[in-house]
Amino acid sequence: MEDFSDWFHRMLDENELIDIRYPVKGMPVYRGDGVRIIREMIRHLEALLEADGHEPMYFPVAIPETLLAAEAEHIAGFEDEVYWMTHAGGNPLDVKLALRPTSETCMYPMFALWTRTHTDLPIKIHQTTCVYRHDTKHTRPLIRSREIWWNEGHTAFETQEEALENIETVKRIYSSLITDLLCIPVEINQRPEWDKFPGAEYTIAFDTIFPDGKTLQVATIHNLGQHFSKVFNIEFENAAGEKKLAWQTSYGPGFGRLLASVVSVHGDEKGMRLPPKVAPIQAVIIPIVFKDSDKKNVMEFIGKVKNILEKNSVRFTVDDGDERPGAKYYKWEQRGVPLRLEVGPKDVEKKHVMTVRRDTSEKKPVKLADLDVPKVLDIIQKTLLAQAQEKFDARLFKAKDEKELDKHLGEGIVTTGWCGEDSCAPSIESKGTILSTDRERRRKCVVCGAEGMTIKVAKTY
Amino acid sequence: MEDFSDWFHRMLDENELIDIRYPVKGMPVYRGDGVRIIREMIRHLEALLEADGHEPMYFPVAIPETLLAAEAEHIAGFEDEVYWMTHAGGNPLDVKLALRPTSETCMYPMFALWTRTHTDLPIKIHQTTCVYRHDTKHTRPLIRSREIWWNEGHTAFETQEEALENIETVKRIYSSLITDLLCIPVEINQRPEWDKFPGAEYTIAFDTIFPDGKTLQVATIHNLGQHFSKVFNIEFENAAGEKKLAWQTSYGPGFGRLLASVVSVHGDEKGMRLPPKVAPIQAVIIPIVFKDSDKKNVMEFIGKVKNILEKNSVRFTVDDGDERPGAKYYKWEQRGVPLRLEVGPKDVEKKHVMTVRRDTSEKKPVKLADLDVPKVLDIIQKTLLAQAQEKFDARLFKAKDEKELDKHLGEGIVTTGWCGEDSCAPSIESKGTILSTDRERRRKCVVCGAEGMTIKVAKTY
Repeated sequence: MEDFSDWFHRMLDENELIDIRYPVKGMPVYRGDGVRIIREMIRHLEALLEADGHEPMYFPVAIPETLLAAEAEHIAGFEDEVYWMTHAGGNPLDVKLALRPTSETCMYPMFALWTRTHTDLPIKIHQTTCVYRHDTKHTRPLIRSREIWWNEGHTAFETQEEALENIETVKRIYSSLITDLLCIPVEINQRPEWDKFPGAEYTIAFDTIFPDGKTLQVATIHNLGQHFSKVFNIEFENAAGEKKLAWQTSYGPGFGRLLASVVSVHGDEKGMRLPPKVAPIQAVIIPIVFKDSDKKNVMEFIGKVKNILEKNSVRFTVDDGDERPGAKYYKWEQRGVPLRLEVGPKDVEKKHVMTVRRDTSEKKPVKLADLDVPKVLDIIQKTLLAQAQEKFDARLFKAKDEKELDKHLGEGIVTTGWCGEDSCAPSIESKGTILSTDRERRRKCVVCGAEGMTIKVAKTY
Repeated sequence: MEDFSDWFHRMLDENELIDIRYPVKGMPVYRGDGVRIIREMIRHLEALLEADGHEPMYFPVAIPETLLAAEAEHIAGFEDEVYWMTHAGGNPLDVKLALRPTSETCMYPMFALWTRTHTDLPIKIHQTTCVYRHDTKHTRPLIRSREIWWNEGHTAFETQEEALENIETVKRIYSSLITDLLCIPVEINQRPEWDKFPGAEYTIAFDTIFPDGKTLQVATIHNLGQHFSKVFNIEFENAAGEKKLAWQTSYGPGFGRLLASVVSVHGDEKGMRLPPKVAPIQAVIIPIVFKDSDKKNVMEFIGKVKNILEKNSVRFTVDDGDERPGAKYYKWEQRGVPLRLEVGPKDVEKKHVMTVRRDTSEKKPVKLADLDVPKVLDIIQKTLLAQAQEKFDARLFKAKDEKELDKHLGEGIVTTGWCGEDSCAPSIESKGTILSTDRERRRKCVVCGAEGMTIKVAKTY
C-alpha cells in the first residue's frame, strides 16, 4: 500500500493541481484544476462575506517597516519570517518594505482615517490575496508554503458585543465554506495562550484530520480586542460624544490548505473524489464504441445527453478520445470527477445512460427522460460529507492516562487533561501539540493526576 | 469648470473607488466599488480566455535574480524598476528575489519542463495578479502605479502561424473586454521599435483618449518570437522527430487603467456613468414619500418592483434613507448607477414607476407590467458606447505640417508622416509621443517633407 505522503504528492502532480519544481522553495505554481477549485472556494466565500456586509478591498503588498513594527507582540511574532524589500532598481529604498505576512498593520492605519464617529462603524472588509512568510520549518506542498493564498477579513466595531457576534457569524461562514462546500469535517478549537495570533486576545482555529492521523489547521479567527486600535488610533466619537477605541477581529482561511484537505480527506485508492460543488468537471460522458457502425447512433444520443446537462448548467466534458474506455475510466476517476455517464449501443437501444458514481462506485442505468444530474450531484455532495464525517468521528479519542494518550496520538485528536503547571507540559508536548485548552471543563491531568483543565492534543502538520 | 484632473481625483475619492493615502507611493488601496468593477472585468476576461483554451494558473511573485536576468534585452528594460527582496527575517537570502515586474522569466522555465513533444503544445495560460514596477516617473492614481493589477496571458506554439493567429484572437478578446464590456473606444497601434516590450519582436497596444486629449495605453500584446524559448530552452520534438523551439506571445490589460478609463471616458458634470454590465448597482429604487400616510402604499408597490428586478437578476438597491429625494438623486448619479426608479403615491395610483436614465437623463413613466429593466440596461450600455465613440472619433486628426501638428496635439491622436531619420525625430518627440509607426503606409514627413512612413502622435499619460 502506497504511503499517504507519496499518494498525496502523486495526486498533486498527476492531476496537475500544482507544480512544486518552481525554483523558489515553498512557492509552487498553481495549475489548471488547482486554480479552478480554489476559484470556487473564493466565489462561495466572498458571496457569503459580502451578504454579511463585508466590503471587498485590495490593500498593497508592501508594508513600511515602521507600520509593521508598531504593535510590539505582533512584530515579535512575525519578524523572523518577514521578507524585506530593500532595493528598487539599483538603489536602496528610503524605507524598508515588508511583504505582507498578514495585513493588520497595513489596513488599520487606513481604518483610522475612515473612522471619526460611531456612524462610520462597523467597518467589515475582506480581501483575497497572497501573504508571505519565510517559514523556517520544512515546507510541504500546499500545507506549509511561503506564499500563502488566502482570504483575510478585518473589522472594527463600536462595541465588544458586536465583535463577539461577528466571530460567531464568521464561524458559520467558514463552516459553510469548509463543510457545506468542501465536505470537510472540522473541530473548532480555541488555541492555548502561547499559540494565539501575535497581538490577539485569543485565537480560534478550524482543525481537520488527515488520513495519516495528523491534524491540519485550515482557518483561524482572532479576537484582537483593542490592541491594534490603540496602536493605530482607530478612535471614534460615540453617541454621547465620548472618544472611544474600536473593537476588532481578523480572520482567514488558507486556500492551499483547504485544497490539500479536499484531496486528502476524500481521496481513495483510485485517486481524488471531488465534491461536486467545486469539481471543475462534474460529469464526464464516455462513448463506448467498439464498432465504427455504432458510432453515429451513440454520438447522436450523446448529443441529447449534452443538451440536458447544458440546460441544467452542469460542468461536463465528453471524452471521445482514442483511448480504451478502461483507460478513460481510470483517468477521470483519478481526477476526481463525481459522475461518469457511459453511452454504448445497448444504452442507446434502451434509451438510457449508464451512470457511475465516484463516491460509492454505484453503477445504475437511468432512462434519458429521468436523468436529473443536479440531483445526483447533490446526493454525491451529501454522501462525501457523511463518509468524511464518519471517518473523522472515528478519529476522536479520550485519554485518561499517558498510556492511552500514547496509544491514540497520531490517530487523530485526543481529549485529555492537564493540571496547567509548567512541570507537566513538557511531557505532553513531547508527544504532540496542544490544540486547545478549556479551563471551564475540569479534568484530571494526564501526567500528574491533579485536577485541571480539558485539553485536546494531536500530532499536527 | 472643474479641471479634469481635479474632477478625476474627486471621483476616485468620493465614490470610494480607491484611497491614495496609503503610505507607500504608487500603491493605493482599492475599495468597494473599485474592486467590484474590476471583478466584473476579471470574470468577463477569464471566461473568454478559458473558452479559447487558456488554462488559469497562479505563478509565484518571487523571481530568482538568475532567471530574471537570463534574457539580456528583457533585464535591460526592467532592471531600473525592479523591487528586490534581499532578506528574510534578519538573514540575507541566498539568492536575491525580484518581485515580478511581469512573469515571462518566472513562467517560461516551467513551460520548458512541460514541453517535450509537439503534442504538449500549444501552452496557453493566464493569471490574474499584481506586478511591481518602481516607476521613477510621477505616479498617478490608477494610471501610473507601482503595484499594477492585471491579467497576463502567456503562450508557446509549435509554429509562428499559430502565434500570429493567437495575437488576432487576443485582439478580439481584449476588444470585447474594453469595448463590449466597458464601452471604451480604442485604437490598436503597433508601437515603434524603440518602444516595444523588452525582449519582444514587436508590441501592439490599445490606446484610448481621455477628456483632456491625452491617450492612455490600457493593454498590450507582444509577439515574442523565439527570443525567450531560446533562452529558457522551450524545445520540442516535432512530428518529424526534429528538435524545434517554441513560438511565443504574451499579453495583458491593466485593470487600474481600465477603471480610470471607465471613470474618465463616460463621466460628466454629475459624476460617473457606469456601463450597466460592470455597474455594482445597476438600478436604484427611490421611494418619494412626503406624507407618512403614503408610505405603506409606496413601499408595498416597491416590493412588487423588487420582485421583478430579482427575477431578472438585476443588481439593485432601495434607498429608503432619511435624506431628501434630491440629495439621493445627486448621490446615486455621482456614483454612476445607470438607472433610477422613482416611486411616489401618484406612481402607485397609475401603477407605473418613473424611470430615469443616467446616460441621457431621459425620464419616462413605465407601467409595472411593461417594466423590462434588462432591456433598458442593454440600451444604456449601447448608448454609452455610441456617445463615447462619437467623442473619440472627434479626437482623431491629421496633420500635413508642423503647424497642424501643434494645433491638434493635446486634443487627441494625430496621424502624420515621418521620414524615419534621426534628424527629424527630436522635433516630433519634443511635441508628443509617437504611438505607432507604419512603414507600409507612405506619407510625407511632417518636419522635412521627405517621403516616409505614417505615424500617429499624441500627448500621453
